[in-house]
Amino acid sequence: MRFLAGRSRDAARALAKLDTGAKNALLRGMASGIEKSARRIQSANTEDLGAGRDAKLSPAMLDRLTLTDSRIAEMAKGVRAVADLPDPVGNTISEWTQPNGMRIQKVRVPLGVILIIYESRPNVTADAACLCVKAGNAVILRGGSEAIRSNLAIAEAMTVSGLPPHSITVVPTSDRAAVDELLQLDGLINLCIPRGGESLIRAVAEKARIPVIKHYKGVCHVYVDREADLDMAEKIVVNAKCQRPGVCNAIETLLVDEKIADRFLPRIGRTLTDRRVELRGDDKTRQLVSQAKPAVEDDWYAEYLDLILAVRVVDGVGEAIDHIAKYGSAHSDAIVTGNRATAEKFLREVDSSSVFWNASTRLADGGQYGFGAEIGISTDKLHARGPMGLEELTSYKFVVIGDGQLRE
Amino acid sequence: MRFLAGRSRDAARALAKLDTGAKNALLRGMASGIEKSARRIQSANTEDLGAGRDAKLSPAMLDRLTLTDSRIAEMAKGVRAVADLPDPVGNTISEWTQPNGMRIQKVRVPLGVILIIYESRPNVTADAACLCVKAGNAVILRGGSEAIRSNLAIAEAMTVSGLPPHSITVVPTSDRAAVDELLQLDGLINLCIPRGGESLIRAVAEKARIPVIKHYKGVCHVYVDREADLDMAEKIVVNAKCQRPGVCNAIETLLVDEKIADRFLPRIGRTLTDRRVELRGDDKTRQLVSQAKPAVEDDWYAEYLDLILAVRVVDGVGEAIDHIAKYGSAHSDAIVTGNRATAEKFLREVDSSSVFWNASTRLADGGQYGFGAEIGISTDKLHARGPMGLEELTSYKFVVIGDGQLRE
Repeated sequence: MRFLAGRSRDAARALAKLDTGAKNALLRGMASGIEKSARRIQSANTEDLGAGRDAKLSPAMLDRLTLTDSRIAEMAKGVRAVADLPDPVGNTISEWTQPNGMRIQKVRVPLGVILIIYESRPNVTADAACLCVKAGNAVILRGGSEAIRSNLAIAEAMTVSGLPPHSITVVPTSDRAAVDELLQLDGLINLCIPRGGESLIRAVAEKARIPVIKHYKGVCHVYVDREADLDMAEKIVVNAKCQRPGVCNAIETLLVDEKIADRFLPRIGRTLTDRRVELRGDDKTRQLVSQAKPAVEDDWYAEYLDLILAVRVVDGVGEAIDHIAKYGSAHSDAIVTGNRATAEKFLREVDSSSVFWNASTRLADGGQYGFGAEIGISTDKLHARGPMGLEELTSYKFVVIGDGQLRE
Repeated sequence: MRFLAGRSRDAARALAKLDTGAKNALLRGMASGIEKSARRIQSANTEDLGAGRDAKLSPAMLDRLTLTDSRIAEMAKGVRAVADLPDPVGNTISEWTQPNGMRIQKVRVPLGVILIIYESRPNVTADAACLCVKAGNAVILRGGSEAIRSNLAIAEAMTVSGLPPHSITVVPTSDRAAVDELLQLDGLINLCIPRGGESLIRAVAEKARIPVIKHYKGVCHVYVDREADLDMAEKIVVNAKCQRPGVCNAIETLLVDEKIADRFLPRIGRTLTDRRVELRGDDKTRQLVSQAKPAVEDDWYAEYLDLILAVRVVDGVGEAIDHIAKYGSAHSDAIVTGNRATAEKFLREVDSSSVFWNASTRLADGGQYGFGAEIGISTDKLHARGPMGLEELTSYKFVVIGDGQLRE
């Protein structure tokens, strides 16, 4: 693995020298490569699916693993879209001149070698590889063992002429020890991004000696304030809970100001129950929403990823903020209110990667924010927080231009 | 330690709510507190010095440990200077509106709880504490065990009325197990910055489960190109090697273009020898500089931190870049040349936190860059690279303001 990572580091040095035009040409070549190799990718995928059936994978897993014609076409389209994004590398972040005449530029540079660890979907192979290459990085990909033939075929299809050798490496073994070894290679690998369930991410974070940017879970909240437009609040709660309950920026807990609880809770209770959402409420909630089951302490911490919602009545924005600080996961939280001062308090004091005023937490997403692509989402605070795009795959350096300046 | 870090986290929440004026008033109070407590700090320091003499600390260590009147006055002055610096917290890094009308602001926020691990100088206690507080963070300080009484007295002097309780915590024990425990507290402590020798920093990085920003060593280079102004080159090399050889941004290796080796090496050899610098050269260097000893492979990796310089003749900027990539520490490297294209190749391809054209590597420093204060220097690439000021003690969050936007 050290040998493999060393080759990736050499590739990273070569990639860092490519200009934007050269990288974009390579990315368009990769998109064509995927299209031209569609047959070969599908036959590798057929082998993976056969092995998966033998291993009794669930139908849901087999579905995620399957590469249809349209999924392959989507992968190629995604790679072309990344070619069209602006290149962060070489951008001057800031620039100034010191009194001694030296000019200082803070300039974006690639990170180097990025290790992506993910689960079953083979399309992540193409997405992650093209984002890393666009930002001038070499990438080491470690997907699910059940997708290894598909992932190798996709990486091969993307290995176009002109791309520095070993820019895209799929770890050629399903051996767990290989990942453990990669996670120790501080100095060779600059960043690991694990993508998947909480247990995968925790296992990576436990073992890594290299920097990891991670996202454990999303325990997201909507707080409906006494000065909320209740029609808007209802739409936001329904959207944040029901539009796609299995994802990290869907809400798990609804907090309702006691001042409007008797007006809001019965109606939102009916609406959510009609949409087959199971409600788990505190005592005050259950007095107003008869269908709510009692919530226990664990409910406030829970990431259901399902049509279940914990509901609590609070005495105002302060208690809502305290609840989120105690039980939340610092992912995405929203307030619905017409009062600017109340909103600003919430936006300032809730320490989450995204805070919303009068909008759904489901909007916390690289695409929705206009980043054009998302390599992951971070609930960490170092380097990258919230949705991560191309910029978050870069570092910077100080370029100092003088005419003989010395330290006095 | 978990209890202690939990209190720091509560303090961090309270600090994050303070506005710039309130923080600056507290910092000025801390400066006065240090001045008013000068006697008490000195008597604690006298106890540390007595114990240090009993423990047979070296005269150099005892000197670093000693707090004179003027050193205490300097500490207070340093704290006031931080009060005068601009506050990064609350700054809008970028701001845009999406087609659906939602306004997105990327806003600087404090990191949370920062653990600083350092060695003997007690003034680091005041410096680190005031920088962390200015950026809205709580700080846990773990200085050298030989300075523990001084550090506790300084922290007590800085614990002014109005400061949220436990904003500044000195770990009250010299027990190594306490540090090891703190380094495991992912979720409570947001960042560890170790300051000191390489062995301290490696030990911290090995054990930590929390993010660490570190700087192992500075193997810095000057490359003198065929088109260099040789007078300028001589001044830069002498400054970079001799002005303060014991620090990380002093150079350890000089690379000389073979095209000007016969003109430059004899003169720089004489100048450096006159300044008592020991030279260790490759074969080509030794043909031109008789006083140079032979360099062995380990010399190219060495951080001498002393009046010793490794010297190598290279065939041009390309070989200089390759040498730095192989042997350097990605800290600070300089080229001296009059040729813009050569300089730009070096500045682009040398992957170090600071790259210089016609200036001394000794200028790689937060103060020299105009940051006003430096909490450390990073040779990592994630989050912070190079000199770290107040901005590097912050994270950011996305503040999204809508009027009922939903995810479609």
